Amino acid sequence: MPKKAKGKIKIIPLGGLNEVGKNLTVIEYENDIIIVDCGLGFPDEEMPGVDLVIPDVSYLEANADKIRGMVLTHGHEDHIGAIPYVLRQINMPIYGTKLTLGIIKNKLEEHVLPAQPQLVCVKAGDTVKLGQMSVEFIHVNHSIADACCLAITTPLGVIVHSGDFKLDVTPIDGDMMNITRLGEIGKKGTLLLMCESTNAERPGHTPSEKKVGKSLENIFAANVDKRIVIATFSSNVHRVQQVIDVSAKHGRKVAVTGRSMLNIVGAAVELGYMNVPKGVLVDVNDIKRFRPEEITLITTGSQGEPMSALYRMAFGDHSQITLDSKDLVVLSSSAIPGNEKLVGRIINELTKNGVSVLHDAVVEVHVSGHACQEELKLLQALVRPKYFMPVHGEYRHLAANRELALDMGMDASHIFISDIGKVLEIDPKGARFSGTVPAGKILVDGYGVGDVGNIVLRDRRHLSQDGLIVVVASIDSHAGLLLSGPDIVSRGFVYVREAEELMDEARQIAYDAIDRCLSNGRYADRMALKTALKDDLTKFIYSKTKRKPMVLPVIMNL
Amino acid sequence: MPKKAKGKIKIIPLGGLNEVGKNLTVIEYENDIIIVDCGLGFPDEEMPGVDLVIPDVSYLEANADKIRGMVLTHGHEDHIGAIPYVLRQINMPIYGTKLTLGIIKNKLEEHVLPAQPQLVCVKAGDTVKLGQMSVEFIHVNHSIADACCLAITTPLGVIVHSGDFKLDVTPIDGDMMNITRLGEIGKKGTLLLMCESTNAERPGHTPSEKKVGKSLENIFAANVDKRIVIATFSSNVHRVQQVIDVSAKHGRKVAVTGRSMLNIVGAAVELGYMNVPKGVLVDVNDIKRFRPEEITLITTGSQGEPMSALYRMAFGDHSQITLDSKDLVVLSSSAIPGNEKLVGRIINELTKNGVSVLHDAVVEVHVSGHACQEELKLLQALVRPKYFMPVHGEYRHLAANRELALDMGMDASHIFISDIGKVLEIDPKGARFSGTVPAGKILVDGYGVGDVGNIVLRDRRHLSQDGLIVVVASIDSHAGLLLSGPDIVSRGFVYVREAEELMDEARQIAYDAIDRCLSNGRYADRMALKTALKDDLTKFIYSKTKRKPMVLPVIMNL
Repeated sequence: MPKKAKGKIKIIPLGGLNEVGKNLTVIEYENDIIIVDCGLGFPDEEMPGVDLVIPDVSYLEANADKIRGMVLTHGHEDHIGAIPYVLRQINMPIYGTKLTLGIIKNKLEEHVLPAQPQLVCVKAGDTVKLGQMSVEFIHVNHSIADACCLAITTPLGVIVHSGDFKLDVTPIDGDMMNITRLGEIGKKGTLLLMCESTNAERPGHTPSEKKVGKSLENIFAANVDKRIVIATFSSNVHRVQQVIDVSAKHGRKVAVTGRSMLNIVGAAVELGYMNVPKGVLVDVNDIKRFRPEEITLITTGSQGEPMSALYRMAFGDHSQITLDSKDLVVLSSSAIPGNEKLVGRIINELTKNGVSVLHDAVVEVHVSGHACQEELKLLQALVRPKYFMPVHGEYRHLAANRELALDMGMDASHIFISDIGKVLEIDPKGARFSGTVPAGKILVDGYGVGDVGNIVLRDRRHLSQDGLIVVVASIDSHAGLLLSGPDIVSRGFVYVREAEELMDEARQIAYDAIDRCLSNGRYADRMALKTALKDDLTKFIYSKTKRKPMVLPVIMNL
Repeated sequence: MPKKAKGKIKIIPLGGLNEVGKNLTVIEYENDIIIVDCGLGFPDEEMPGVDLVIPDVSYLEANADKIRGMVLTHGHEDHIGAIPYVLRQINMPIYGTKLTLGIIKNKLEEHVLPAQPQLVCVKAGDTVKLGQMSVEFIHVNHSIADACCLAITTPLGVIVHSGDFKLDVTPIDGDMMNITRLGEIGKKGTLLLMCESTNAERPGHTPSEKKVGKSLENIFAANVDKRIVIATFSSNVHRVQQVIDVSAKHGRKVAVTGRSMLNIVGAAVELGYMNVPKGVLVDVNDIKRFRPEEITLITTGSQGEPMSALYRMAFGDHSQITLDSKDLVVLSSSAIPGNEKLVGRIINELTKNGVSVLHDAVVEVHVSGHACQEELKLLQALVRPKYFMPVHGEYRHLAANRELALDMGMDASHIFISDIGKVLEIDPKGARFSGTVPAGKILVDGYGVGDVGNIVLRDRRHLSQDGLIVVVASIDSHAGLLLSGPDIVSRGFVYVREAEELMDEARQIAYDAIDRCLSNGRYADRMALKTALKDDLTKFIYSKTKRKPMVLPVIMNL
């Protein structure tokens, strides 16, 4: 550590720890802030109706004048997806590689922003100066092309942020993760390694992307009489490249379907990340001109998404493509936790239609894009960090990554499992946690950003479980007279035509409650009347049905 | 096939095909009906608020006089769980092994039945005569003790129903699946094999339960300084036995927690299915008398169930047990599809509290109870059926099981993938599908059986996505005057205090709609008024928020 430096570095994750997705880390030194990535997360089953989750960036808004720029590791949604939302509040220069920025440009077109975004293209090997810090982009392998890890030089030493990575010694683009450069940096020692933890529970090495190519080769060789449909993640440019290569080799034409697949393949070809032999790509409208066994289709829908091209094909709802026993569908993917049932539904439907289906439980048609334990340890060994912070993952993953650091001989007091909003402070005397800043989940639902919170979600969950009963009455609050009602309307509770008796009884219960309140002389107290209706009806309904629908009393005063 | 026979056999699955759970098969010959199993299913994400799913047995109700009895393969919920509901409608003798009936008795105590249930205890090797048919119970291995497959002799030949099974050559109770008896039956040839399909996609053999014992032995040997908490399925008597054995060997006391675990261990010990060395079991209230490392806890919660003992321990909500870094938790189970996230949540919380956690992705602490491909083929080879019907599973599993039959050389025309309600008819001339009977899912929600249907579920799903807006108005329908309102109440839509402007605008939209209808002279037409309110508000809200809450208009006529 340089002797003259005396400031403090603050490392503040605003997303990506104790959760999957919405990765965002703040690195602060005196009056300079660098932001690493700006991703979104997906709602879990506790957030019905929510479209997206983005990080709470109020800390950044409060410190906007310090922000020197945002640096991006790669173009996946969980690393860039929140950029349009953050740019609405704060403009700043954004540094990323060509493909990463290409994907962002596509995305920004769907949003109205207050200012022109400042996208600065870099390539692996470049260094950008941001205030008193500088950031070097270093090539890594991952399930998207043009991914980087970052070496951030600060006055107190170098911080390495791994981004998402794996080490692929036989990568499709011929460009292995630059472990040499990481070793050079590590030779002098680094201050801190922030290392992703996705596969930290998994022993060994992640297989090379090339392994999938070999499986595809075997599949194509064994299915010369079938049309082959391959579903995969649209951002996996190298996977798509391999499908194109093996198709070309077997004399097949390739058609692409699914909006995001078309977008990304388009961008990748245009930016030079994909190499398509002439005449191989055909429009999906033209596949009828070829025999089925001359065609490969590349499609979205590998997670079973109900609006995806593959889903529509499976359920006979795709305008151009119908699948049958002459088709082979390959799911070149693995189900993201939570999507297993959706994927299963597609497999069942395809099988029912006589379609042959191959997926990763049966053949090795997918490999992970994240480092397993031996790769994670290798990164540590190369970078030789003084301090270690596992990032990107649920607690179990972070803890598993810490175990690896302990195995490598690091002192437990030098390993920090942080959380979103938690500040790690590093100065020449050492490193320590030091307070918190606001952090959390901002929910995006339709046009609304942040207007769906815990109360709304609690009500949605309640409504989903047992539905609702609305009880309405008009009263003359001066005279204390019931003028009309009580009327009872229910939704999602019980099929009313078959429960008339129950609803009649419920109306009587409501009538009694109103009568009691009015004759008590409490007719002006709408709150007491509502509470009585709610309590009496809830109790009655539960005793009869063992259900607890939401009871919503509406009293009209005339 | 005996020459004199001339009747028809009907095979009618009422559950368990194209779905997981609620297994129930009807076997009918002339005036005799046998029911094989009577299980329940669990609701999927499309059925919010539903507790259980049971088969539609209206076919049985309509043919109650033909029913000679129900035969049970084993005591898992998906094979016996619907019995209390079916017994409410139809009483009949029920034949099952001792443990199976023991579990049912427990269950029936929670229900009020119109007649005394007739439970008839059998053991493997027994044959019961049911009208013109007879059923032999044949021992199989499975993840619950006392499981059987069935050989059903009919005038047209023998039908073998596999139940759930695996072949374990080193079973914990020393009693291997009786493949010899199956071979004897098969020597003469059988008419039909109905074979479970759960693991039909998995190659090879399912490992022996003993393999788990070896892993447990290693885990106990390596963790002599920790309290060990083992979560598993309560019905897996042999798993629990192994935990007790290895605990006794290591000088540990065993305490049991969790209601279903206490129930089943109690029943298994009482009925002689578990062998507990004297002094090993201690009450969970007494574990304080021992050092932590002298204790093994066996608990429910291996699926992450939010009310389970393990969940409460993990989240500090268990009255007797707190877990910390001196504890090792072993999840001796695998996550049932759909439960992955719940299980993950427990692992994260335990890890956060410093608890060590082992699960089946890390160590082999669980084996399946279902046959893999080689075992499924072995059963076919032994039974030598003329016809084959894969049962128990989603379509993909049934189709995979069919592939195995094809591999074994069976003619495709002799293999029948059926569906619930679909009738397979077999007579001396052959076998064929022949019509359908009513079949489906009956939803149980609280006390209600069957009163939650598609409309209620659709409303629940709608309410869960974007919540609800209730708009109430009182009108004088004779004079065509708005007397009060419109009032707007919302739940699960938006946090109202922060959306006052939106709600004010919505009220104005509602006012305009009412005004328009009333001035059109359509004030007596409540339906038109409601439709106008609903349409206008839905359109307005969508244009402002891109959300579609349920809009519920309530008009009071005074």
